[in-house]
Amino acid sequence: MMTDLLLKNVRPLGGQATDLLIRDGLIAGIGSELTAPDATPAEDGHGAILWPGLIDAHTHLDKTTWGMPWHENDREAVLRSRIDFERENRLTLDIDPHRQSLRHAIGLVAHGATHIRSHVDIDTTHGLRMMEGVQQTREKLAGIVDIQMVAFPQSGVMVMPGTVELLDEALSNGCEVLGGIDPCGIDRDPKGQLDALFVLADRHGCDVDIHLHEAGELGAFTMELIFERVRVHGMQGRFAISHAFALGMNDHARVGRLIDEIAALDIAILTTGAPSAAVPSVKQLLAAGVRVGAGCDGIRDTWGPWGQPDMIDRATVIGMKNGFRSDRDLRLALEIVSQGGADVMRLDGYGAAIGCKADFTLLDGETVAHAVVNRAPRPLVVKGGKVVARGGACVVDMP
Amino acid sequence: MMTDLLLKNVRPLGGQATDLLIRDGLIAGIGSELTAPDATPAEDGHGAILWPGLIDAHTHLDKTTWGMPWHENDREAVLRSRIDFERENRLTLDIDPHRQSLRHAIGLVAHGATHIRSHVDIDTTHGLRMMEGVQQTREKLAGIVDIQMVAFPQSGVMVMPGTVELLDEALSNGCEVLGGIDPCGIDRDPKGQLDALFVLADRHGCDVDIHLHEAGELGAFTMELIFERVRVHGMQGRFAISHAFALGMNDHARVGRLIDEIAALDIAILTTGAPSAAVPSVKQLLAAGVRVGAGCDGIRDTWGPWGQPDMIDRATVIGMKNGFRSDRDLRLALEIVSQGGADVMRLDGYGAAIGCKADFTLLDGETVAHAVVNRAPRPLVVKGGKVVARGGACVVDMP
Ligand SMILES: [Zn+2]
Ligand SMILES: [Zn+2]
Repeated sequence: MMTDLLLKNVRPLGGQATDLLIRDGLIAGIGSELTAPDATPAEDGHGAILWPGLIDAHTHLDKTTWGMPWHENDREAVLRSRIDFERENRLTLDIDPHRQSLRHAIGLVAHGATHIRSHVDIDTTHGLRMMEGVQQTREKLAGIVDIQMVAFPQSGVMVMPGTVELLDEALSNGCEVLGGIDPCGIDRDPKGQLDALFVLADRHGCDVDIHLHEAGELGAFTMELIFERVRVHGMQGRFAISHAFALGMNDHARVGRLIDEIAALDIAILTTGAPSAAVPSVKQLLAAGVRVGAGCDGIRDTWGPWGQPDMIDRATVIGMKNGFRSDRDLRLALEIVSQGGADVMRLDGYGAAIGCKADFTLLDGETVAHAVVNRAPRPLVVKGGKVVARGGACVVDMP
Repeated sequence: MMTDLLLKNVRPLGGQATDLLIRDGLIAGIGSELTAPDATPAEDGHGAILWPGLIDAHTHLDKTTWGMPWHENDREAVLRSRIDFERENRLTLDIDPHRQSLRHAIGLVAHGATHIRSHVDIDTTHGLRMMEGVQQTREKLAGIVDIQMVAFPQSGVMVMPGTVELLDEALSNGCEVLGGIDPCGIDRDPKGQLDALFVLADRHGCDVDIHLHEAGELGAFTMELIFERVRVHGMQGRFAISHAFALGMNDHARVGRLIDEIAALDIAILTTGAPSAAVPSVKQLLAAGVRVGAGCDGIRDTWGPWGQPDMIDRATVIGMKNGFRSDRDLRLALEIVSQGGADVMRLDGYGAAIGCKADFTLLDGETVAHAVVNRAPRPLVVKGGKVVARGGACVVDMP
C-alpha cells in the first residue's frame, strides 16, 4: 500500500502554493524544498486547494436507491408512514444494504470525504441485517474511508418491543455509537426511550447520537430530559443531537438558554441545513462553543428524492439556509463539513498540519469560497497517504 | 434560419416516446408516423423527455460576475450597504452590463431556458447604462432566447430624486415592465413610491413587477397599499409581486386573507425559494388560483456567491424549501419554472402541444421527477424550431 507521497503545488487551506510530503500515511513536511527518497511516488496538485478530508457526520448508508432504477414516490408526507413503508418494502425494492451502502460511500469518497458516520437501521423486522450490510462495505472500503456506525432505532424503541435487545446486540457486534429517535414524536414515551438509551450507553461505554426532529416546545422538552440524564450519567462530551429543530424555534431567549445548556454539557449538534424546516443557527452554536458537524442525511431514498453524496453540496445547502454570503462565511460552511465533523467524532490526528494523518481532498477554486460554490469535481482525494479518488472518480468502481 | 425540424424519439412531458415535427417554428405534428419534406433536418432525441422551454421569470442579467475572477465579499449583510456598494463599484469592478448579461443569458440557454424576465438597474448614477447593456445582449441573442426587461429602481425611487424620470425614459426606450422595491424598507415612503409607480404604469400601459422583501406585518401593509391601487387603477392581472416574503409569515389566517386578495386581483407571485427567508407556500398560492413563476434572482454577484444559471437547479431549491418529496411535487416544481413563468408573463403559444411555438428543452431522466434531481446536462434546447444548445453548451460561445 502506497503511504508515502510527494504532493507538489497545492495550497493548504487556501494559502500559498507549496509541496507536501507524506511518510507512513502522515503529513511529514510542508514546504517548497522538501527532500524525499527517490522511490517516493509524486503527484502534481496543479495549484489546487488542499483541505482536510470532508466528513459526512450524519448519513444513512443503508437507505439510498442511488444507482438503482428511479424509485417513484407517490406517498403522503407522514413521518410514521414513511418509516413503515421503508421497513416493510426495502428488501422487495431491492435496496440491498451492502450494495447500496457501497455505492453511497464510494460517491462520498469521490467527492472528497475521508470519514463517515452512518446511522444503520436496527429494527424487529430486519434485526441486524442493515448493520451487517454496511459492515461489509466498511470492510471492503478499509483504507479508503473510515465508516463509523450508529445503531439507529428508526422504527422506534418503546413502540417496537425487542428493539432494545437488538440495539444491545448491535453495539456488541459492530456499531460504535448508539442512536435514538424522537422520544415523544415516534415513541410517545420520552422517559421510556431515554432511560433505555442511557442504560445501553452506560453498559457499552459508547457515545449517543439521537435524531431529534421534534420542533418548538416539544423538542425543547425532550432536550431538557436529555440534559438531566447527561448530567446524571456523566455523559458530558459524549452525546450528540442530530437535527435539533427545536433550536430553530422563533423564541431567541428560550433558544439561547437551551444552547447555553448544550454548551455547558458539551453536547454536539449535527445539522443538515434542512431547507423546509426551522434549523439551528450554526453561528449561534459555534459562538457558544458548541461542536457542530454536518451530514447529507439520506440521499435519494424512499423518504425523498433530494441530495447528493457530496459534502460540498451539503455545505452549500447549509450556507444558503444560514444566510451565509461573505467569503468568511463560505469558509465556515466548509469547516463545518470537515473540522466540524472531526470535532463531533473526536477524530485523532485530523487536519492539514505536519503530524496529521494524510486524509485530505484537493479542491478546485481560485479561493476557498470559490471552491465551495463552483461545483467542480475534486481533483484528488487522499486517505492515509494513498490516492483514493481522482478527477471526481473513486479508485473503487461503483458496483 | 432552420425553423423546420423532425425530432425523433422524445417523450413529451414525460409520456410515451414519439416523434415531433416542427414547421415554421411551430409544433406541427406529434406522432410516430410523421411525414416531413426530404430536406427537413432531423435530430434524434434518444428517448429524452421533452419539456416546454424553462423560464427564468426573475433574474438580474446586469449583475453577475460569472466568468470573471472570483469577487471576494467581506462586507456586512446590510441591504442598504449592499445596494450602495454595487452601484458605486460595479463599473470599476468591470461588471460590464453587456458582457456579463450575455454570459448569464447564455448560461440559462445552455440549461434549457427559452424565456427570461430580467430586472435591470435604473439609477441616478448610471442612468440607462445597465438597460442598454442588456438590450445589446437581447439583440445579440434574438432568436436564441426571449429577454423581457423590467426597469428596476434598485437604489430606491423616492430616496433617489430623478429616478422616476429615468424609469419613465427606460419604459419609452426598451423596458416592457416597470419594477419597484420595498416601498417602506428602502424608500421609507410607501405612498410616495407606489403612487409614482402607478402613474408610470398608467402612462405606459405596462405591467408592474415589484420586489417586496418586506416581511411580516410590514410587507402585509405594503401589499394592502398595492391592493388598493391595483383596484383603483384597474391593474388586475397586470401586477406581480416578487419574493412576497410577508406571505411566509407565521399567521395562517392573515396569510390566507392576503392570498385571497391576491387571487381576486389576479396578482402574480414570483418566488426564488430563498432558503434563509420565510417564503410563500407555492402550493397554497396555486390552490388559490394565483399565477406563480420563479427565478434564480441574482447569481454570483456582489450581493452573494450562490446560484447557477439553471432553472432546474432553481426548481430543486424551491422544491426543497417547500418540502416537496413526491414525484408529483417534483413535477410541480418543474412546472413552476416553465408554465408558471409563462403564466406570469402571459406568453402566447407556450407549451408542448400542436400549434405551440417550438420552444423547448430535452431533459435527461427516467421520469420527470428523476430529471429534476439528476443534475444532467440538457441534451438539446430548441428555440423557434432551431437548436440553440446541445449537450449543455449553447450554440453562442461565452464571451
Ligand atoms: Zn438521519
Ligand atoms: Zn431580484
